[in-house]
Amino acid sequence: MNYSKLQDNFFRLRSNKFFELFVVSVILFSALVIGAKTYDIPEHVLTAIGWLDTGITLFFLVEISIRFLGEPNKRTFFKDPWNLFDTLIVVVSIIPIEDSEMALIGRLIRIFRVLRMVSIIPELRLLLNSLLKALPQLGYVILLMFIIFYIYAAVGASFFATINETLWGDISIAMLTLFRVMTFEDWTDVMYETMAVYPFSWLYYLTFIFLTTFAFLNMVIGIVVSVMEEEHAQVRKDQALADGELTIEDLSQQINELKAMVQKLSQK
Amino acid sequence: MNYSKLQDNFFRLRSNKFFELFVVSVILFSALVIGAKTYDIPEHVLTAIGWLDTGITLFFLVEISIRFLGEPNKRTFFKDPWNLFDTLIVVVSIIPIEDSEMALIGRLIRIFRVLRMVSIIPELRLLLNSLLKALPQLGYVILLMFIIFYIYAAVGASFFATINETLWGDISIAMLTLFRVMTFEDWTDVMYETMAVYPFSWLYYLTFIFLTTFAFLNMVIGIVVSVMEEEHAQVRKDQALADGELTIEDLSQQINELKAMVQKLSQK
Amino acid sequence: MNYSKLQDNFFRLRSNKFFELFVVSVILFSALVIGAKTYDIPEHVLTAIGWLDTGITLFFLVEISIRFLGEPNKRTFFKDPWNLFDTLIVVVSIIPIEDSEMALIGRLIRIFRVLRMVSIIPELRLLLNSLLKALPQLGYVILLMFIIFYIYAAVGASFFATINETLWGDISIAMLTLFRVMTFEDWTDVMYETMAVYPFSWLYYLTFIFLTTFAFLNMVIGIVVSVMEEEHAQVRKDQALADGELTIEDLSQQINELKAMVQKLSQK
Amino acid sequence: MNYSKLQDNFFRLRSNKFFELFVVSVILFSALVIGAKTYDIPEHVLTAIGWLDTGITLFFLVEISIRFLGEPNKRTFFKDPWNLFDTLIVVVSIIPIEDSEMALIGRLIRIFRVLRMVSIIPELRLLLNSLLKALPQLGYVILLMFIIFYIYAAVGASFFATINETLWGDISIAMLTLFRVMTFEDWTDVMYETMAVYPFSWLYYLTFIFLTTFAFLNMVIGIVVSVMEEEHAQVRKDQALADGELTIEDLSQQINELKAMVQKLSQK
Repeated sequence: MNYSKLQDNFFRLRSNKFFELFVVSVILFSALVIGAKTYDIPEHVLTAIGWLDTGITLFFLVEISIRFLGEPNKRTFFKDPWNLFDTLIVVVSIIPIEDSEMALIGRLIRIFRVLRMVSIIPELRLLLNSLLKALPQLGYVILLMFIIFYIYAAVGASFFATINETLWGDISIAMLTLFRVMTFEDWTDVMYETMAVYPFSWLYYLTFIFLTTFAFLNMVIGIVVSVMEEEHAQVRKDQALADGELTIEDLSQQINELKAMVQKLSQK
Repeated sequence: MNYSKLQDNFFRLRSNKFFELFVVSVILFSALVIGAKTYDIPEHVLTAIGWLDTGITLFFLVEISIRFLGEPNKRTFFKDPWNLFDTLIVVVSIIPIEDSEMALIGRLIRIFRVLRMVSIIPELRLLLNSLLKALPQLGYVILLMFIIFYIYAAVGASFFATINETLWGDISIAMLTLFRVMTFEDWTDVMYETMAVYPFSWLYYLTFIFLTTFAFLNMVIGIVVSVMEEEHAQVRKDQALADGELTIEDLSQQINELKAMVQKLSQK
Repeated sequence: MNYSKLQDNFFRLRSNKFFELFVVSVILFSALVIGAKTYDIPEHVLTAIGWLDTGITLFFLVEISIRFLGEPNKRTFFKDPWNLFDTLIVVVSIIPIEDSEMALIGRLIRIFRVLRMVSIIPELRLLLNSLLKALPQLGYVILLMFIIFYIYAAVGASFFATINETLWGDISIAMLTLFRVMTFEDWTDVMYETMAVYPFSWLYYLTFIFLTTFAFLNMVIGIVVSVMEEEHAQVRKDQALADGELTIEDLSQQINELKAMVQKLSQK
Repeated sequence: MNYSKLQDNFFRLRSNKFFELFVVSVILFSALVIGAKTYDIPEHVLTAIGWLDTGITLFFLVEISIRFLGEPNKRTFFKDPWNLFDTLIVVVSIIPIEDSEMALIGRLIRIFRVLRMVSIIPELRLLLNSLLKALPQLGYVILLMFIIFYIYAAVGASFFATINETLWGDISIAMLTLFRVMTFEDWTDVMYETMAVYPFSWLYYLTFIFLTTFAFLNMVIGIVVSVMEEEHAQVRKDQALADGELTIEDLSQQINELKAMVQKLSQK
């Protein structure tokens, strides 16, 4: 069977902007309908949306099946994480949901259905790819942040535990409290409480805020710089291929031709 | 009738910085006067401002009329969105307002009058243009954010609805609560409440904050990078036109002239 | 009298990093002493700091006098805003303060004395210069923000004034409330209050937050881009002067010399 | 004894990614165990972690000893701040902790042990280096911020001290209150209180927020710009070495060779 041609047809349909818009609208609408049961939506609209939603799931099921069958080497198919992701989404989406029973599981399955949007919109995949690419860069900054949090939490738990057990009871609770301080969420209440016992404890909070803000900023700047350097290097490389080196080589060649001519002339 | 000359005169008056400053001052002042009725402003100042404001509206009316009449092809006039915008503002501004009745509609019309500033200040138009240009780039990030919000809201509504109906009643309310958590607005109160029932629910909030902050940062960085790349490409292109390629071509031509000379010499 | 030599000596003393550090320390210390009367500082330390502070004021007085006397054209002296600033600071600093009476005016004069740091540290002047240079770029963004605030405040005052007179009483109060919403300060309290009457008023707050955050981000990005473009243009210009254009001109000249030689050869 | 070879072996072990991961896991796990005494962890797991932790400390002790013994010039060893840092961490880590007594000191020593992660992960050292390199750039901005804070605190303490002694009692307390305003932490409560006495005091808060936000933004932008300029300069230099200048010099040389040939030709 000619899978490759079928696959092409499906790919063309998928890439069609109007089809994409239609699918995204149905997914979004059917997602919002679950979230807004209290608003009065006519029964037949709900039924129509339900059928459209099922239709889209079937479309995805057929599409991924053809993609799988069309793959010459079945093993490499699941090596592409996006194929795995798409298959998982489709498989979970086709599990039938009975509204009356297992409301929780039904809901969680419906959540998964929203992720079909990632399958249909290529820009979202690009976005997720770039997010994942930036993750390792973040790893070490998060480790550094952890060290700062841990040290401050240990100091905080040692000194302030007797003042407020709920906020500084042990190191893990103190780390949560420090995260709250970092988001500036009622941090002055936390501070005024400990300042009543240790008047200089504002130094503890201010140094913590400076350190974490500074480390956070540095992280952001670091990512900006490295992402831009990458982009620039790419642009420079493209440009060099397009005009730069070639022209200088052209000049060099022209001069060499001239040399040969003069050489010939001098040998006459 | 010579519309083109009239149009030129109006354009010159409009571009005059002092006239612009005068118009902006009157618009701002008349806008602030509405907002601050409680401050005691002498009656005759109010009357003067009122007349000046009416005068400016008339100026805009005459100016846009001449621009319209001067347009050779009347159809293309409204294809420029700024012409449409200016016309709308002027038309709404000339609706007479009776202070005693329909206070609400009168107020909303007065709001529109502030937008005349956008008509008169070219820099504001540039700014709005650049804002609108960045919007499509934002679209997909907002979609990604929506997916994150939706998934977390669905999970939150499933588990926390029994704890606090007001905050987690259904998915749409849960999304609003999550937006509140994202802005760090009393988010610890929301967290402590659910932690009393599910002690590990801090993981829910922390992963949500990390994901949204990270996606938001990525969006900002993405826009910065793409805007700068565009600017750089423009600068490179301008510079190349100004000196780069031309000089290398000049060199190449010089060498070619030299070659011709040597050619002639060898043929002697 | 040889003002120029004296001026040189003062300038050298001023530029001395140790002298700068000493002056900054005394100014900082004497500033903090006022702020911290409650801490027990020995009387003789306070006296010493007082004398040192007076000494520094006298140094600045003598230095600015010599700078003024050394200026050939007295009129141009006050055309430099920094000379004006320095003179103002010194003149205000030498006003004697009686601690017992006029505590308020004495305090405000002492505040001015802190600004002597700006006179002595050249990096702070550079920083202030760059801040002032970025101000006009901000002007139009602030105007745009004002328009957004004004429109939302007018709508808010029209609809919500009956709900909470304190927050939405008139347009100016509504603008202050919206600034509070923009800083995320207890904004949900403001929202929940109006949502009780208008259930869809969350749309009002969310669109406002998106618009202002987006406009603010655009402003920041705009400034980053323009500042960097300026820096880059400067670097490119410097680099072009250092190697680029000169070398290509050199090549062109070399080829021209060669042409002349071939010309001579062909005329033989 | 062949220290150099031993040092190489240790360095190879240290650079091994699996060894690094193992060490980091043990350090993290033993750090978290202290923080989470309330969770039920089996006794023998705790014992195992304890032994592994001691083992890692011994590894670091042996490694730094060999590095020290292998150094030809013992004096230069402690000139490298990282050697000093590593030695300090190891020395503090080998102090034995009795859990029963001196709980506070024991805890603080345990905190220090977390810093062994900085010794083992080279990326964290790079990160810390870059943080330290950006510090001097921050110095002057912090000084500028201090001046802004000081001036506003002095004005605030003069006018608002009678309204709320706790918030505006003296200049140092007012500075802490202003830092709270800068983080937007319940700043409207502070403002509404003073607006009851001075209705125009919102101007004080708004100008303060604008100034500090603006100065902060400028700092961030300044750091981004300078870091990127540095990176770019480095890239340009590398690129110039790799291709740029060499090629133009090559061309120049080619032309010179040509000149010499023509010279010879004309002398024939």
